[in-house]
Parts: sequence; C-alpha cells; structure tokens
Amino acid sequence: MSDSEAPAYRAAGVDIAAADRLVALLRARVTATRPEVTAGIGGFYGGFRLPDGTELVAGADGVGTKILLARELGRFDTIGIDLVAMNVNDILTAGAEPLFFLDYVAVGRLEPEQVAEVVAGIDRGCREAGCALLGGETAEMPGLYRPGDLDLAGFAVGRVLSRRHPAPPVSPGFRIVGIAASGLHANGFSLVRAILERARVDLRDPVGESGTSWAEELLRPTRIYVRPVLDLCTRFPVAAMAHITGGGLVGNLPRVLGGFGARLAFGAWPVPPVMRELQRLGGVTDAEMARVFNLGVGYCLVVPPEVVADIVAALGAVGWPAWDIGVVVETAGVSGL
Amino acid sequence: MSDSEAPAYRAAGVDIAAADRLVALLRARVTATRPEVTAGIGGFYGGFRLPDGTELVAGADGVGTKILLARELGRFDTIGIDLVAMNVNDILTAGAEPLFFLDYVAVGRLEPEQVAEVVAGIDRGCREAGCALLGGETAEMPGLYRPGDLDLAGFAVGRVLSRRHPAPPVSPGFRIVGIAASGLHANGFSLVRAILERARVDLRDPVGESGTSWAEELLRPTRIYVRPVLDLCTRFPVAAMAHITGGGLVGNLPRVLGGFGARLAFGAWPVPPVMRELQRLGGVTDAEMARVFNLGVGYCLVVPPEVVADIVAALGAVGWPAWDIGVVVETAGVSGL
Repeated sequence: MSDSEAPAYRAAGVDIAAADRLVALLRARVTATRPEVTAGIGGFYGGFRLPDGTELVAGADGVGTKILLARELGRFDTIGIDLVAMNVNDILTAGAEPLFFLDYVAVGRLEPEQVAEVVAGIDRGCREAGCALLGGETAEMPGLYRPGDLDLAGFAVGRVLSRRHPAPPVSPGFRIVGIAASGLHANGFSLVRAILERARVDLRDPVGESGTSWAEELLRPTRIYVRPVLDLCTRFPVAAMAHITGGGLVGNLPRVLGGFGARLAFGAWPVPPVMRELQRLGGVTDAEMARVFNLGVGYCLVVPPEVVADIVAALGAVGWPAWDIGVVVETAGVSGL
Repeated sequence: MSDSEAPAYRAAGVDIAAADRLVALLRARVTATRPEVTAGIGGFYGGFRLPDGTELVAGADGVGTKILLARELGRFDTIGIDLVAMNVNDILTAGAEPLFFLDYVAVGRLEPEQVAEVVAGIDRGCREAGCALLGGETAEMPGLYRPGDLDLAGFAVGRVLSRRHPAPPVSPGFRIVGIAASGLHANGFSLVRAILERARVDLRDPVGESGTSWAEELLRPTRIYVRPVLDLCTRFPVAAMAHITGGGLVGNLPRVLGGFGARLAFGAWPVPPVMRELQRLGGVTDAEMARVFNLGVGYCLVVPPEVVADIVAALGAVGWPAWDIGVVVETAGVSGL
C-alpha cells in the first residue's frame, strides 16, 4: 500500500511503502537457492523438501514494538508467547505441525532474571504449539541497546502434514472463515504507542467503558492457532489459510488467494472495543484501521461453502469464536469496506 | 568464567558471568521438548530426529556489536557473510550440511537499499555455505532502534550427513587441529570498540606496521568452514568439532571434549597482528585474550593422532592454513597458557 493509505502509521514512524520496495529489491537480488526449495521469499513461510518427500517449512519473525510496551509496564512474562505465536501461526498456514523453535534475545545489559522471564513465556508458547524449544542465543550488546532495552526474534520449523482431504484450489464462491484474535496480537504497536502518547492515556486506566486496563488489553498474548487448526485440516477440506498480521485482512488475505480477491462483510463480526477506542483517540480512518490492525480476526481459513457451518460449529465447541466473514471473488484485492 | 577473569570485557559492558548464570537458569526452566530432540540448550546446535531417521540440526546467532562497526564505517556489504558464518559454522560441528537459512533484520528507520545491501551479503554467505536463503523478516521499529541503527539475527537448519568413518569417541591423546580464522570473526567487538575508542585510533590508519587499515582488518568477514570441513568428514575419522566464538578456545573447546580437557601449544601457531595490537593498546592479559578472541584459530577438529598430518596437508592443499594446536588430556579445562 502507499503511504497515503496509512498516514497515521507513517506519522508513527512506520513506512509501509518502504517495506514494499524492500520486498521487490530482495526478490530481485536473492540468488541462494536449491532445487529442494518449494516456497521462498514473500510468503508466510519458506518450504524445503527432504529426499524422502517430507516438506519442511520455516519462518522468522519478531514481536515488533510490542516489546517496548512490555518494557514500559515491566512485564516480560507473556511477550515470549507472542513471539512463538507470530512464528508458528505463519508456518501453520502451510498446514504444518511446528516441530521446533529457536529464539534470539538481544539486550543492552544482561539481566539473567529478565531474560529468563522472557524465555519462560517462549517455553509456554512452545508447549501450547506442541513444539520443542530447541535452542537460542542471548546477545549482550552495549552501545546498540540501552540498558533495559531488549529485542526478540524467533524461528520456527514445521513439517507439512499429509491430509485426508487434499486442499482444493481456491475458487470464487469459497467462503472465508475468520477465527477470533485474542486482541491486538503483535501488530500496529508503533501506531498504538503514538496514539496513546498523544492522548496522554494512563495505561492503568480502563479502555472505554470496559473494566479492563489498557495495560492488560494491550499486552494480552497473541493466540496460538495450531491445535484447533491442525484438527480442522484433518477433518475438512481447507483451500488456503492466512495469518492476519501487519497489513491486516487487506494485506494478508490476498497473499493466499492465488490472484482472486475477497469481498468481506465488515460489520458482520465484532471489532474489539480496544481497536474502536484506538481509532477514536487517534482519528484513524476505517481504511487505515483495516490495514494496520486485525480488527478482531487473527486467522482465516478459505473453504468450500458447504463446510463453513461445520467448521464454525467445531471451533465454537472448543470455545473459539469464528465467523463467516466473506467470500472469494474473481476481482483481485479486498473489497467491502 | 568469572568477571575477574575478563576485567577489560566487563569494563566494555559485557558480563560473561551473567551469561553463565543465564544458561543455568534456562537449563532449569525450559520444559518444552519432544521425544525427537537429540541435542538441546547449551551446545553449538539443537538436534531433532525425523521419523525416517534424518537428524536435523538448527542454530540461532547474531553478529554482536560488529554491526556497530559496520555502521560507523557505512559498509554493510559483508556483515551478512558474518551472520551466515556464525550460524552455519555452529551447526557444522554436528557434521551437518546446511540446508537453509533465515534472517531477521531490525531497523530504526527502514532504508530499503541499506537492508538490501545487508541481505546481499547474507545471500553471498548462503551460496558459500551451499544453503538456500529461505526467507526472513525485516522489522521497522522506531523507538527501539535509532535511525541508522540495525541489528541482525540468523537461523540455520542442516542435516547431519552419514559418514564413511563413524566419529570415534573423544579420547585422551587425540590431537586438536586448528583451522585459521580470517580475522576477529564476529566476537569481542564490544571490547575492540572500547579499546580503539580509548586509544583514539582512527579506523583508516594501518594496524601496527602492516599496510592494512583497522577498518579492513576488523570488518573482514568470518570464514565459512562448511565445504572443506564436510569434505574432511567424508575422508577421515573426526571425533568432535568446535566453532571458536565468544569464549575463545578456552570457552569453546571444552564444550565438545566430553569431560576431558585440552593442553594447547599456545605459541605454536601465529596470532594475527591485529589481536597483538589490540592487546597492546588495551593492556589486556594473555588469559583474557584467550577468553575473548579466537587468537587466529576459528574452527577445531578433534582427531586421532594418525590422521593429523593428512588433515593439515589436505587443508593446506586448498589454501587453508591449519595447525596441530594441542592434545586431549584427562584433566578437564584448557591448559597451556
């Protein structure tokens, strides 16, 4: 998208147009490949086929500036769950079981208890995702990070599961099932912090009319979709899946629609109050909200219309809200806003 | 090691004792594992066995504060080679062929050309190591990084190769073959920067009597040992291998000696002039030098004595200096200094 479509995000210091230029540069310049590669730069994951036919998938991701909020609040026990979620939800879109995870933690001054708290969250996330925490690196880098600052990166490797129902090709008329996000997940936090700072919001105050504080709402860890989604993949035909991260539904859904588009029924599912309140405080347009935040939908499945009701019911039965949020259409892009 | 053994490094802001405490904390707290895990936290790599018997190994690492030097010099074309090297040399110690690599690049302000230059270096490193650059993440994080600052993390996955000569168990009397480093590699740079700053060294000046500038010496990329070492593993019995990174020979060799120790013939191989000059300028003790820098040896093979001459000759024949640097002994630890 162009900067003009995300003026508030741009003002908060995030340049989405530069990110798009970078992806184009990298696609042109990366030459290191091998015949076993099945999916490369630009997708939710990279794929690599082993000699026996096993397809591995891998992804790398961080938690963005949500880490700065954790630091402000002095709470490091759940940011590791976000880190695992951002990675395993990405490789999950390949229909892959996460096998193992590694982390990179960079700090300005090494405080072992602080890092151990972060890693305890990573460990919890890995257990939730069913993968092993196989290793990692903690780097003490005075001069690059201030004392107290830290950054996190994660890497996940999974194995694509064979399915009883092979994935049908994405076709116009297929429905899009959206599964509820647990909150903001780990995206848009540079904008969140800019809005809250300008509005002089105290993070201990409740969000709007709710009884929940900003701190609690904002830090709530990203949902890990692995177990219910892998279960759905064994029971139903699933054509494609998308993890709704930076770029929102508008930026992420088209990545898996094979050139088709989506018409979404914005308004057909509940947008979390915290996002409504951020929009109000920041005067952010609907269009930009849809490009920066997940609007309450953290993960999407693209499925034949006849299985939508069963999938929504199956998710509801395990306590996961899900909705039929739209339809695949011939015309590329996302409409409906 | 304790802080008292690395006073200069401590003064430069790197607390090795805290790092040791962290490893102990993590070993106690990490619970997310799976039956397929063959090697976990604390080694050069993590291992994971697939159902068909294939053993995957994976590692995560960064380049430390060498990135700050690259920034000071405005040269980002080779730091990506370091990033790949730090990772693939680690998993190489398992006798593993690197399959694929992913990167994480974090910036304060996204300048696509700068990041593309970094990734071009990563791409070169991957080609040298024979692995695919499968993906990555570039995160723009205003507020955490200053404009112009960046950090890098990498992640490599490899497959352990079957060997014609199975690895014999490490035994006293086995020799240690050291392969030359290309320079400082990517370790000890917080100390390097502190020494050079205090001594008011101009990075354009030559190092000591040499004709090479500090800038060139310091930024020279880390050697990637993959191709010759995998070749050696097919031709000779190799009991164990170590990548000499932070901690130096003293910290890294014992990790692979299975409780035995090493007596090294310090003085039997040439220590690079740049390290001698850093020692002189910083007044660093021999003991601390051996714990922070590689002293000219970037990678070690532990082998039965009867194959040492052939291995050194094979490396020499392809232009890689290597030396018989010592012997495995009953007593744990590294002696000889």
